[in-house]
Amino acid sequence: MRSNGGVTTTPRPDAPALADLRTRFAAMWAALEPVGRDGRSGGYRRFAWTREDHDLREWFAAECRARGLDLTTDRMGNQWAWWGDPDAAPAGGNKRGGNERGGGKGIVTGSHLDSVPDGGAFDGPLGVVSALLAIDALRAKGFEPHRPIGIVNFVDEEGARFGVACAGSRVITGAMTADRARSLTDADGTSMAEALRAAGRNPDALGPDPETLRRIGTFVELHVEQGRALDLLDEETPVAVGSDIWPHGRWRVDLAGEANHAGTTRLADREDAMLGYAATVLAARSAAEARGCVATVGKVAVTPGGVNAIPSHVTGWLDARGADADAVRAAVQDVRAVAEQHGGVVTEESWTPTTAFDPGLVRRLATRLGGIPVLGTGAGHDAGILANAGVRSAMLFVRNPTGVSHSPQEWADPADCVAGVEALTSVLEDLAGGAR
Amino acid sequence: MRSNGGVTTTPRPDAPALADLRTRFAAMWAALEPVGRDGRSGGYRRFAWTREDHDLREWFAAECRARGLDLTTDRMGNQWAWWGDPDAAPAGGNKRGGNERGGGKGIVTGSHLDSVPDGGAFDGPLGVVSALLAIDALRAKGFEPHRPIGIVNFVDEEGARFGVACAGSRVITGAMTADRARSLTDADGTSMAEALRAAGRNPDALGPDPETLRRIGTFVELHVEQGRALDLLDEETPVAVGSDIWPHGRWRVDLAGEANHAGTTRLADREDAMLGYAATVLAARSAAEARGCVATVGKVAVTPGGVNAIPSHVTGWLDARGADADAVRAAVQDVRAVAEQHGGVVTEESWTPTTAFDPGLVRRLATRLGGIPVLGTGAGHDAGILANAGVRSAMLFVRNPTGVSHSPQEWADPADCVAGVEALTSVLEDLAGGAR
Repeated sequence: MRSNGGVTTTPRPDAPALADLRTRFAAMWAALEPVGRDGRSGGYRRFAWTREDHDLREWFAAECRARGLDLTTDRMGNQWAWWGDPDAAPAGGNKRGGNERGGGKGIVTGSHLDSVPDGGAFDGPLGVVSALLAIDALRAKGFEPHRPIGIVNFVDEEGARFGVACAGSRVITGAMTADRARSLTDADGTSMAEALRAAGRNPDALGPDPETLRRIGTFVELHVEQGRALDLLDEETPVAVGSDIWPHGRWRVDLAGEANHAGTTRLADREDAMLGYAATVLAARSAAEARGCVATVGKVAVTPGGVNAIPSHVTGWLDARGADADAVRAAVQDVRAVAEQHGGVVTEESWTPTTAFDPGLVRRLATRLGGIPVLGTGAGHDAGILANAGVRSAMLFVRNPTGVSHSPQEWADPADCVAGVEALTSVLEDLAGGAR
Repeated sequence: MRSNGGVTTTPRPDAPALADLRTRFAAMWAALEPVGRDGRSGGYRRFAWTREDHDLREWFAAECRARGLDLTTDRMGNQWAWWGDPDAAPAGGNKRGGNERGGGKGIVTGSHLDSVPDGGAFDGPLGVVSALLAIDALRAKGFEPHRPIGIVNFVDEEGARFGVACAGSRVITGAMTADRARSLTDADGTSMAEALRAAGRNPDALGPDPETLRRIGTFVELHVEQGRALDLLDEETPVAVGSDIWPHGRWRVDLAGEANHAGTTRLADREDAMLGYAATVLAARSAAEARGCVATVGKVAVTPGGVNAIPSHVTGWLDARGADADAVRAAVQDVRAVAEQHGGVVTEESWTPTTAFDPGLVRRLATRLGGIPVLGTGAGHDAGILANAGVRSAMLFVRNPTGVSHSPQEWADPADCVAGVEALTSVLEDLAGGAR
């Protein structure tokens, strides 16, 4: 990669004062607002390797260029922008070992820009925008980093198009094989390999990426909270530190029937796959209640899908999570039993055990930010994938007053978002500073 | 319309001998076989005003041209091919009154070429191919019709694209208004008006079409049977006469929820629209069993439709039919009660009462064909729409050995198909002949 000549820099003449933060946040938000927004739902449809994704990636590159950051794109397509050279000789040891693959020294923040179907504006973009503004804030105060600071835009975090979440971080860490990634298909039957090729990328280059990972000493992902834990606290606490990610997984439930005419086939002669699907949906809710976890069927595909045709095949996707892995596993077994009673087959598409973020890093962040709350979460994140790959990682959560996420109604107060930027700035100053 | 000079004609030199029928049937079938066939399912995807539909319409036009028939297309896009001039002065009275709109004298047969998603090869095309071959057979035997004979290819019979079955016949009879037809949309949000315009047609011209209907004295639609009634009989009976169409309807069931993150939202805080949908699906089956009718939910749409998003809206489509209209109505009320318990709204999209075909015509066909069985059916057909509009109508059913329809597995034995052509030939000879 190109170096900009060292790990320190001087404030740029146009670096903003902190007082401008709210205005600058609003301006960046306004630039992102129209991209991929559905006119009817008001939600976002920003899916990997689509035109909308391309526009967001171009926006990210332009923002990084405007700040003089060195932008590289790894073989999977994740974008990395560096202030300082992460490939230069280490400036000092990482006491906790950091990245087990070699102990990189870079302090990386960022998140993703893609969305679920009809998703909200904050899930993902808040972390990317906050990272860019934190760099501005550091420079505005004349901060000189002793470690390189990186901003990442992870590709395909939501898995909305190809069905596997955190595809960008999974591939570079080896948590998902290149073969599996390439062969994933979207609803139109387009494979990820074809989508990559159509976007001008080389799918043959996918695979574990130790060079990219080696640069990351510490990863801190800022994200809008997706529950109401902060909101339910009495104190005015707009930011929390993430301690761990619940165990979670996805299962595909396939129910086979026999296509036939809806008007002329006697009930006794029917093999209607929709009936087993309906029973499975209800079983998922009952099992989650009984086992103390959460379970959701949010996606379904019906073949042939005509109003007057008995379904020959119904596929539902089950998402299950909880604080206790055994409880989640037991709930899925309950669902499996009901599906199998209807001739169904349940296939695990992904399973991620409890992901604990680095306890020392979590403590350090909470202390640095004045003893703010520490929370677990039921949502998966690239930070969790990196943590599982041995990267020293943690998260910051910005308060969500309704807890609503993955919805056009997802919201965070602008003042809380600015508090998030300030918290991230403080954390980067601590981690990249010369003090340690 | 252009006339070919009278209602009689002489056999064309190349007219086939009846012995050729099976070979000719196979050849025509082979020509249609690849059009719109899905490589994976083996079923057909022939939807109104698509490329596949265009190819089928061109095929129909070419077959009619090859037979010297006069082809006209009505304002809705239904194709009519005439042997003889249906606009010429009546050659004789229609004793039963025939078409109440004026007593047309044409004897019309035919069916449709479109399909449900992953539909079978026979539903529709069998009636069109049989009509063309029946004309050949009549000419081969030197038959001279005293009434004009017409073949129709009705557009959009299945309603697979825009959701309303028999759209072609509904519009020309006024059973569906032009405004409603134009504003129907497909899954991509394309309206029928836009689809018509894209196909080079004028959507502003839609509406009741008395000129077209006036030409039809009698309509006989040959169709593959969609149940197993003929197959379950002991006798070798490859053909039956249709007596009536069961009352049937379609209802849209809308269930509202609140989109939210599948991992971070407590069960107690959820409004998951999929749960009400599942309960409604199971209620539909129970209600049909209790009321002695059939009910099917074969199509569903989920918003936002992501694996990790709680559904904010689920729409299911209910199809219900039965021999007894009151039973069907009661079953739908049962389903409505369950949907409403879950905050759902049930909207009637269509309702068609029992359609009795013309009893005299039914008797005449059954007698002419040697006392063959007379059957009711749960499937809707353009013949039913015409019957409800006062056109003297009936149907012929060709045996289906499995009863499977609306499926790639739909099948009829070639020998039975040829028997169907012979039956239709005999019926046309009777109805269009000089004897009456």
